[in-house]
Amino acid sequence: MPYRAPIGDYQFLFDHVVDFAQVAATERFAEATPDMTFAILTEAAKMCEEVLAPLQRAGDQQGAVLEGGVVRTTPGFAQGYRAIAAGGWIGISAPQEHGGMGLPLALATAVGEMMGSACLSLQLCPLLSQGQIEALDHHASPEIKALYLPRLISGDWIGTMNLTEPQAGSDVGALRTTATSNGDGTYAVTGQKIFISWGDADFAENVCHLVLARLPDGAPGTKGISLFLVPRNLPDENGAPGARNSLRVVSLEHKMGLHGSPTAVMEYDGATGWLVGAPHKGMAAMFTMMNNARLGVGVQGVSAAEGAFQQALAYAQERRQGRTPLGEGAIIDHADVRRMLATMRAETFAARAIALSCAVSADMQHATGDEAWAARAAFLTPIAKAYGTDTGVNVASLGIQVHGGMGFIEETGAAQYLRDVRVTAIYEGTNGIQAMDLVARKMMDGGEAAWRLLEEIEQTAESARTGLPHLAEPVWNAAESLREATEFLLTQEMNDRFAGAVPFLAAWARVLGAHFHLKAALAGGSVRARLAEVFITRLLPDYTAHLAHARTGAAGLYALSAEDLAG
Amino acid sequence: MPYRAPIGDYQFLFDHVVDFAQVAATERFAEATPDMTFAILTEAAKMCEEVLAPLQRAGDQQGAVLEGGVVRTTPGFAQGYRAIAAGGWIGISAPQEHGGMGLPLALATAVGEMMGSACLSLQLCPLLSQGQIEALDHHASPEIKALYLPRLISGDWIGTMNLTEPQAGSDVGALRTTATSNGDGTYAVTGQKIFISWGDADFAENVCHLVLARLPDGAPGTKGISLFLVPRNLPDENGAPGARNSLRVVSLEHKMGLHGSPTAVMEYDGATGWLVGAPHKGMAAMFTMMNNARLGVGVQGVSAAEGAFQQALAYAQERRQGRTPLGEGAIIDHADVRRMLATMRAETFAARAIALSCAVSADMQHATGDEAWAARAAFLTPIAKAYGTDTGVNVASLGIQVHGGMGFIEETGAAQYLRDVRVTAIYEGTNGIQAMDLVARKMMDGGEAAWRLLEEIEQTAESARTGLPHLAEPVWNAAESLREATEFLLTQEMNDRFAGAVPFLAAWARVLGAHFHLKAALAGGSVRARLAEVFITRLLPDYTAHLAHARTGAAGLYALSAEDLAG
Repeated sequence: MPYRAPIGDYQFLFDHVVDFAQVAATERFAEATPDMTFAILTEAAKMCEEVLAPLQRAGDQQGAVLEGGVVRTTPGFAQGYRAIAAGGWIGISAPQEHGGMGLPLALATAVGEMMGSACLSLQLCPLLSQGQIEALDHHASPEIKALYLPRLISGDWIGTMNLTEPQAGSDVGALRTTATSNGDGTYAVTGQKIFISWGDADFAENVCHLVLARLPDGAPGTKGISLFLVPRNLPDENGAPGARNSLRVVSLEHKMGLHGSPTAVMEYDGATGWLVGAPHKGMAAMFTMMNNARLGVGVQGVSAAEGAFQQALAYAQERRQGRTPLGEGAIIDHADVRRMLATMRAETFAARAIALSCAVSADMQHATGDEAWAARAAFLTPIAKAYGTDTGVNVASLGIQVHGGMGFIEETGAAQYLRDVRVTAIYEGTNGIQAMDLVARKMMDGGEAAWRLLEEIEQTAESARTGLPHLAEPVWNAAESLREATEFLLTQEMNDRFAGAVPFLAAWARVLGAHFHLKAALAGGSVRARLAEVFITRLLPDYTAHLAHARTGAAGLYALSAEDLAG
Repeated sequence: MPYRAPIGDYQFLFDHVVDFAQVAATERFAEATPDMTFAILTEAAKMCEEVLAPLQRAGDQQGAVLEGGVVRTTPGFAQGYRAIAAGGWIGISAPQEHGGMGLPLALATAVGEMMGSACLSLQLCPLLSQGQIEALDHHASPEIKALYLPRLISGDWIGTMNLTEPQAGSDVGALRTTATSNGDGTYAVTGQKIFISWGDADFAENVCHLVLARLPDGAPGTKGISLFLVPRNLPDENGAPGARNSLRVVSLEHKMGLHGSPTAVMEYDGATGWLVGAPHKGMAAMFTMMNNARLGVGVQGVSAAEGAFQQALAYAQERRQGRTPLGEGAIIDHADVRRMLATMRAETFAARAIALSCAVSADMQHATGDEAWAARAAFLTPIAKAYGTDTGVNVASLGIQVHGGMGFIEETGAAQYLRDVRVTAIYEGTNGIQAMDLVARKMMDGGEAAWRLLEEIEQTAESARTGLPHLAEPVWNAAESLREATEFLLTQEMNDRFAGAVPFLAAWARVLGAHFHLKAALAGGSVRARLAEVFITRLLPDYTAHLAHARTGAAGLYALSAEDLAG
């Protein structure tokens, strides 16, 4: 069941749905011509299909292990990683002055999706380096940039993010890791961090940890946190990895999935680190980086959805059971199987469109500095993250269902997609946190980004009214209901918003998905219109239930105590 | 995180929601007095909490293995199984003349749920024996009954169901296993069967396989299938297990979960078997048994949901992250966490009520012979199966989410619930098959059972109109919409019904769940009313989307070819 990168979908989305041309029309991204874009997608696809996809199963069956303090990665991962690095894919959107390609995030997003479909546990490694590259590029000193960025971009060194501690998960502000000045411009970092993805790897010449810690004069909570760069090996005067730093991998977690990605407990024992950004401003630095990392994780959901869909489709075209309404065909000709496959495809397309649209907004923000683009990127990020990963989970579960009993057998590979992707709804901020971010921080300005998006959706519906009235009408109605619900939510107390945040975000995803499907139908001919019809007639109606739920408020929940719930 | 059996919920449901008193009022089940019921539930709860629950994790970590042709079960499972057998729980609803307790299926359902919460992979073993006991009781000769039933009921012997073959999964009629007469009243059974749960166990004195096979003069398809009883050891003249039969476990599957339950590939090589029921009537015999087995699997979903809920609730009461709206409390005081927990509890209650109501209907059918009860039991069975198992999957996934990052770590135990329960949406007829059963076979009579249920729902809404108008109104409206949609579906071609069968079943589950919650609210005071409010205001609204989807028909799906879907 070989993976085939959906290049046609990316190009169609770029050309007709997310208006990639406006990105390529900016001075900053002038290199991203259609020819260049096609070449990039084709080249990345080739590597994903030929080099990475064959590693997917091994990553599950022979996960990373800790041996003598070193993380031994899955056989083949070193070669796979080197192919990613050699292709320049780690630095695809990194600054050219440090060796990156400087291409749009939208393109990096498509490439990231492909790599994730091919081998999700390995793809997480460059995804983390990309986050670190962005953080250093924005916040580090020129010296640190000059030393670290070329090595991270080339892939010789890898990067990690160290936020979580046992008592500080979603509440980062509760962290206890400390940093004290060594008096020579460096700091001694001490503490334990958990859930550190790719905390070490035998194929990495060096591992650079971005660690959140508190300086002695740091206030309690998130306001007193600073960010430090703590390399596994201290660079010598030539920038080569030198003496071991005082840090170690204590253990690796046994996880439900993503076994190929080592999840480390890290111990820092006076490890030497360098401050990144201003003292006590670590959270701000983290947040810059986190928005794109969140998009990246949302894309991991799309990756798993696409992989699961391709495998289920192939199985359904081959497996024969019973007489179908179309005769002696395969199970794809049974209505319920086709419903599942069409749902998988329509959801995956919607999640991909939302992710790419978010990336385009970020690209326009970076290219133009326009605040409206920044607001849109910020608004779409939690939706892309939560809906992308929920779609990964739901589509992977449907993929198991399409396989019937074979779906539960590990050799089939369908179950791995679900086991691997499940964590994406949790890490980089749980999907509940994403939804709370949407209804709080992302609407602090009164919802400017929401109103602009709703206007666009209504314009799309308006322009489809003549040609595709049966699709235009429900999208228009949904946008109106969503506008009313958004207005209503803004009048509510924050905790009432929080109580309905998850269904509210889900409603936004439904309406945005319908919008992008409708744009596709307008531009793309009959097949796109029929896929849009699946989404708009069968899936979009969920928004009414989500909005009813979103409006319900918190009181009813708090009326039930823990004892009441226990029954 | 010790499991506590929800005895209070069962008793409340019996007394106020599913009218168990009418069962106890029949002559057949006169023994099921309130005292007897309480004693049974208490005794079973004690065993589940103390003996079975401690085996749950071991069943995952040290799954069954095949060694020298024998299935070695998880350490401790033999003792756990003997406790189940010694308590008489295998024969709780089996005929008294053969050593069973002869109690109502509703009571057996509650006990089965408890056992499944405590240790799902072990509980599957007696569940299969119960199915076999029922099949033999209805269809076997007096000699076979006398020989096998006491030994199955005592638990000395265990029973399995052998339907599936590599080319015959959902399409049982495609099976190739053959049976030829040995001329002495026995048959020689030859063929390969797959996905045979508990195909062997080192703790079983004998394993009795019910095998579907085709006689030489059997027609192709399901009409030419016969049912055979094929024991692992041939009983000697004293009924003791004698010579090995010509059958063997070829291999065990590597599964996503339920590792403690051995899933065998079985090979029959001229194995000696006895015909059960009439020649070529094997499917009819299987169907008798399958309805209750389907309910039993639906209950497995409730089991997992309850277990996952209890664990998540305990974690949320203990884990502290951030300041909550109620102050420095645990994460249960965050609105989104409470939303998840309230959803888990409300869904689990609804699924339990539907399962128990289905069981009560079957009990009334058996006690009174009334066709209306039979029709209701038949109608509720696919709903109990599909919604019960979907609830298991969804609630277990929410349980992971409540745990945050810890939910992805296997030691936590939250992930096991999801991995274990996932197969219940597939085996014993996929949930898609259940939904097709609902819209086809279960409405062949024009939907009598549906109309009677809708009348009851409307009566409940009517009687709640004064005291609980905010809950009565939405339930009434939902019942009206469901009636219209059901009427509409009955006018549709079968494949159009099939295309919307899954969302149609989901809508029925939503409305039935709301109905039972409303009954609970009417009878049970303020806590029950608040839980009902969670279900009715937050979850019930899904029915509108489900019904819109259910009405969409098949054409739009078949307008997309496999190539269109591939994109």
